[in-house]
Amino acid sequence: MYHKNLLNVQKTIEIIQKLKVNPKKELINLQNGNSRVLARKIEVKIDVPPFNRSAMDGYAVIADDISKASETEPIYLKVVEEIGAGDVSNHVIEFGEAIKIATGAKMPMGSDAVIMEENVEYEEGKIRIVTPIIYNNDVALKGEDLKQGELIISEGQILGPHHLSVIASAGYSEIEVYKKPQIGVIITGNELVEPSTKLTPGKIINSNKFALKGVIEDSMAVAHIKHCPDDIKKLILAVEEAVDKYDAVITTGGTAISKGDLIIDIVKDLGSVPIHGVSIKPGKPFGFGIIKQTPVFMLSGYPVAVAVQYDIFVRNPILKMQKITKEFKFITAIAGKDIKSSPDKYNVIRADLKDDTGVVYPIRTKAGINKSILLSNCYIIAEEGIGKIKKDEKCNILKFGALKIC
Amino acid sequence: MYHKNLLNVQKTIEIIQKLKVNPKKELINLQNGNSRVLARKIEVKIDVPPFNRSAMDGYAVIADDISKASETEPIYLKVVEEIGAGDVSNHVIEFGEAIKIATGAKMPMGSDAVIMEENVEYEEGKIRIVTPIIYNNDVALKGEDLKQGELIISEGQILGPHHLSVIASAGYSEIEVYKKPQIGVIITGNELVEPSTKLTPGKIINSNKFALKGVIEDSMAVAHIKHCPDDIKKLILAVEEAVDKYDAVITTGGTAISKGDLIIDIVKDLGSVPIHGVSIKPGKPFGFGIIKQTPVFMLSGYPVAVAVQYDIFVRNPILKMQKITKEFKFITAIAGKDIKSSPDKYNVIRADLKDDTGVVYPIRTKAGINKSILLSNCYIIAEEGIGKIKKDEKCNILKFGALKIC
Repeated sequence: MYHKNLLNVQKTIEIIQKLKVNPKKELINLQNGNSRVLARKIEVKIDVPPFNRSAMDGYAVIADDISKASETEPIYLKVVEEIGAGDVSNHVIEFGEAIKIATGAKMPMGSDAVIMEENVEYEEGKIRIVTPIIYNNDVALKGEDLKQGELIISEGQILGPHHLSVIASAGYSEIEVYKKPQIGVIITGNELVEPSTKLTPGKIINSNKFALKGVIEDSMAVAHIKHCPDDIKKLILAVEEAVDKYDAVITTGGTAISKGDLIIDIVKDLGSVPIHGVSIKPGKPFGFGIIKQTPVFMLSGYPVAVAVQYDIFVRNPILKMQKITKEFKFITAIAGKDIKSSPDKYNVIRADLKDDTGVVYPIRTKAGINKSILLSNCYIIAEEGIGKIKKDEKCNILKFGALKIC
Repeated sequence: MYHKNLLNVQKTIEIIQKLKVNPKKELINLQNGNSRVLARKIEVKIDVPPFNRSAMDGYAVIADDISKASETEPIYLKVVEEIGAGDVSNHVIEFGEAIKIATGAKMPMGSDAVIMEENVEYEEGKIRIVTPIIYNNDVALKGEDLKQGELIISEGQILGPHHLSVIASAGYSEIEVYKKPQIGVIITGNELVEPSTKLTPGKIINSNKFALKGVIEDSMAVAHIKHCPDDIKKLILAVEEAVDKYDAVITTGGTAISKGDLIIDIVKDLGSVPIHGVSIKPGKPFGFGIIKQTPVFMLSGYPVAVAVQYDIFVRNPILKMQKITKEFKFITAIAGKDIKSSPDKYNVIRADLKDDTGVVYPIRTKAGINKSILLSNCYIIAEEGIGKIKKDEKCNILKFGALKIC
């Protein structure tokens, strides 16, 4: 009977964390890199800009040529050419000359400054200049944005849109990222069926499947879900296959002590089960096994327990498979009413935190359904020894948003 | 010359918001529903539980039968059957009898309470009970989780994993969601090429493409990106095609006044351009057009300006195409050093907000590259009339995280 000897939550997390993970890598096209985790640092391959270029729409000139321009003594330059952003001029600019230049275009040879279009008057092939500019005015210098060899992004970075843009500028069309963990999910339970309005007696809808696919996706991993009846041979096969194919396996159901509860024994036979039974509420029957170095997270059948077990024990290890390190960030809130908790357990209580006041209200629904989570935005965490929390007392909060990566 | 008559940011947003949007709907399999937006409310189709069921592993009994159980006068019940979670008993339970029952199994006829396995002693086909339980003890009653007809999730909800679980329990295998907006992106500029280390003179890497794909994905939409040279016929074709095929079109480049800047005129010819030139820094040349009721957002070529224009003018209208309403949530921070801003502009300054102290530091890089965003986590917003913000003064902050949906 596992629950005579429940492991505490901290110890459970420590044991799971000891599991060695070898994140796999893959090369992908840069345009598919959003929200992926970089597996190799980015060092700039080329100077950016690769040449001195105009930072404005205007005229490329020789700064010295107009150093004495003023309202009373305007200087006139002859416009000898016009170049767009992608064009290059072969003309070597000389004193008395200007070239009309678009933002981003390469500076013509001989020129060393750009005067903005707004600051000149154009007339019959000439521009009239009344204000001097300095050397390199409105010129983006070669390498000033990115220097070849410069380290700009470290391994382990979760990439957002603007990382991709900078990586492109640094000369990369492909990047090495960590492979998304492939998670095998085995849903056990003869009673479980697909959503339907015509349930035969004894059957209930397999809702965990949908929640687990979603939370695994939110953990930046890929779910492979299979429903397996409580048949020992089929279960053994399903577990063996999942352990071979996937980076981690999650099971639901079959961890408690009743007829047809088989998973724990199967995993024990195929490998080892360092954890079965944790002093957490809900989620006490949680099990953790290892088969051929593949972790097997054995969750309850009840949706509420599954959600808590996933958040507390499974999410972070899956993130770690892409080298994302995440720790629980607790905040303090004020209890909006009395909160029951079991002093011998680590209580994870769904709750609604009012962000504007910092007051939190526990959301209680009686049974196994997940409805309470729709009204909740956080967990109240009441560790062992805390027991009842009275209205207006402080309590520890774990916001759902703080669990996620985005 | 557009910049003699710049529109202010508030007015720009108002004009864009007036555009009528008709979000499209589609039916999808529930398992693909994570992060999608519900287009039709969810009313429960079936009672959950669909029958009275056991909430615990234990024994189904008649509560009256053991109402006088005590340590000194224990009551013994004969265990006549054992039922697993998916099984149904045909036995009608009578006084003196118990049926071993798994969590979730249907209550046998005649029984009206469950006594937990831990609270009895089993011996040779009998259980010994020393504590009475009340009627309905550890029984989950028909409909107590979800009542048929009950409205549980409203239209417009962004679905997370646990919504999917509840929707499954409510009897749905498919759901109606808003179609992800399809966004056509036309990158203009002859100078732009794919990432490479061998750039010919005058060419620069097309980095906007990667950033835009990412920000559009982060806006829960789909990007269709095309690079088009600055050729008027090709551009007209590209714009016409994009306007026909997609829900919105974004262009980059070609909005200012220089050789090869064509987009504004093309959109004017094909439809109308209510906005060209906004008193925002960076991003002044922003244009907004409408062709056959399809919005065309005309962004600058510079990555920094593109990012700001997308965040301020484009992201929210795209979210609105899935009926997601989002407003800018500003917070106040303390300037960590002097911050320059143009008093005649709405200044959007990339910055690093230190969350622990509430102090913010502007991140300045000189030119067109996006590198500054890698060091930033927010914008400082300095509206018209504010001008220089001195160290230790308060300023308005828009956190990048607050822009996103997740």
